[in-house]
Amino acid sequence: MKILVTGGAGFIGSHLVDQLLERGNQVVCVDNFILGRREHLKDAMEHPDFSLYDLDLLELDKLDGLFERESFDAVFHFAANSDIRAGTESTERDLQLTFMTSYHVLECMQKYNVRKILFASTGAIFGEQAGRLREDSPALPESLYGASKLASEAFISAFSGLYDIQAWVCRFPNVVGDRSTHGIIYDLLEKLDGNPAQLEVLGDGKQSKPYMYVHELIEALLYIFENADEKMNLFNIGPSDRTTVADIAKLVLEGYGATQDIAYTGGSQGWKGDVPTYEYDTQKLQMLGWGPPATSFESVKLAVKKIIETR
Amino acid sequence: MKILVTGGAGFIGSHLVDQLLERGNQVVCVDNFILGRREHLKDAMEHPDFSLYDLDLLELDKLDGLFERESFDAVFHFAANSDIRAGTESTERDLQLTFMTSYHVLECMQKYNVRKILFASTGAIFGEQAGRLREDSPALPESLYGASKLASEAFISAFSGLYDIQAWVCRFPNVVGDRSTHGIIYDLLEKLDGNPAQLEVLGDGKQSKPYMYVHELIEALLYIFENADEKMNLFNIGPSDRTTVADIAKLVLEGYGATQDIAYTGGSQGWKGDVPTYEYDTQKLQMLGWGPPATSFESVKLAVKKIIETR
Repeated sequence: MKILVTGGAGFIGSHLVDQLLERGNQVVCVDNFILGRREHLKDAMEHPDFSLYDLDLLELDKLDGLFERESFDAVFHFAANSDIRAGTESTERDLQLTFMTSYHVLECMQKYNVRKILFASTGAIFGEQAGRLREDSPALPESLYGASKLASEAFISAFSGLYDIQAWVCRFPNVVGDRSTHGIIYDLLEKLDGNPAQLEVLGDGKQSKPYMYVHELIEALLYIFENADEKMNLFNIGPSDRTTVADIAKLVLEGYGATQDIAYTGGSQGWKGDVPTYEYDTQKLQMLGWGPPATSFESVKLAVKKIIETR
Repeated sequence: MKILVTGGAGFIGSHLVDQLLERGNQVVCVDNFILGRREHLKDAMEHPDFSLYDLDLLELDKLDGLFERESFDAVFHFAANSDIRAGTESTERDLQLTFMTSYHVLECMQKYNVRKILFASTGAIFGEQAGRLREDSPALPESLYGASKLASEAFISAFSGLYDIQAWVCRFPNVVGDRSTHGIIYDLLEKLDGNPAQLEVLGDGKQSKPYMYVHELIEALLYIFENADEKMNLFNIGPSDRTTVADIAKLVLEGYGATQDIAYTGGSQGWKGDVPTYEYDTQKLQMLGWGPPATSFESVKLAVKKIIETR
């Protein structure tokens, strides 16, 4: 298959590019390099079936030209403002980078008859709610990132119905691993580099979320893409357990070889718009035949090790 | 209260303006007059507490100026492309008129500290699904109108959390009554004006939806606004029964005094993106203390009479 990967130079996107190439696909990657990095694609660049475009999805004319030239069989749409915290500082950032990019991709798919899209969605669409989140749980986002991803899902649903497009909408957990450009492990390591008297951690440390290693996520995505065959395929992806921020802070200190005390800034949220606690019901994914081999804690531990090794 | 009504010259918006004035509020109305009509506001224009702006919500600068000049206590956001069928012909129409208008309203509310919004949402956010639709049913829109309303709900949810805005999100049923500018009754009457040999009706006639008279809808909205007091208040509004398209066609023929046969175009959908059948679970609204006095059939019958009288 000839596949367009948007945001393909990003943390998760670049791992996806590597896997798609390894499985024998032709891969065209677009990235605007706001968060993406060329060095993430250094293996891919050597592959004959890979091509890279430095292109902003907000420039619809250029994207249209790309769709016209290439004939894609599918789009894996991963471009977004993945930095949720940055998105709380300007309402425009997520609207444009996370939602309007999706709309432009859908417009081009409809125009050039591309009939398959896999979309990188998120648990942030749900907002804070009690109980395990099922695929059909109601969505009440509390961040503009979550709102923009939910708005994208809404448009994918309508385009799917109107223009006969098959969609795989995958809600990610917190994803960790090498090549990550932000997130809690990255933040804490940056703070430790300054050798502070205490390690400052946002919130009360009790925030508790499911974490997944990036390679496992990619496996799950490709498994879903190959095995789920409805018109609209919705899946929550994650381990069935969670890890607290306090545990992550301890793992980072240990991995770094530092011995500072931890100073929590307090409050249940790490920042405005943060959903401090969520948990997925992953029964639907398990019924399809896929379950993650690692727990959330194991994924965090591995990620701390890998990030320290490769930074 | 000083209330901004967007889309206040439209079918439902203008009835809302009348009721808000009658209840002693100051009302500022904006409309771009794409679907709105000045004659709908002829009573309001004589009221000292009413002012009207011919303004397009897509012009953010002008909207910002209006919010700066006036100090609103609340916004009733009704502006949208309410013509769902027209929205299936161009993807841009609903994105701009139904979603971006909401985003601009929220931007101004946040900037000028307006803390209350009542939003005109719709059953179309749900798409087609089995069973009665509850407030927490999953939303999978099949039209760009539904997608744009759901995207608006998503942003309202995030703005509510981030900027301390209280929101009343009301999902309307099919609304009928005088001043309507489109919709099935209006369409069928237009066709009968041409005195055709047969009355053409889109679909197979079995499409079945809840209809509500516009005055009752406004009563329900104001009841919800005054009595529900969560941060995010979601309500499905409607009668608990439904009316088929075949029954509506018969009522229109009868009201018009015509005797043609009905010719159905066939197919379960009236048009691409149409949700042929839905039904609300209105228990939440009933628990709040409000139930509609009229059935769906009674509402349609009254609307046919009123529309014929006033056209």
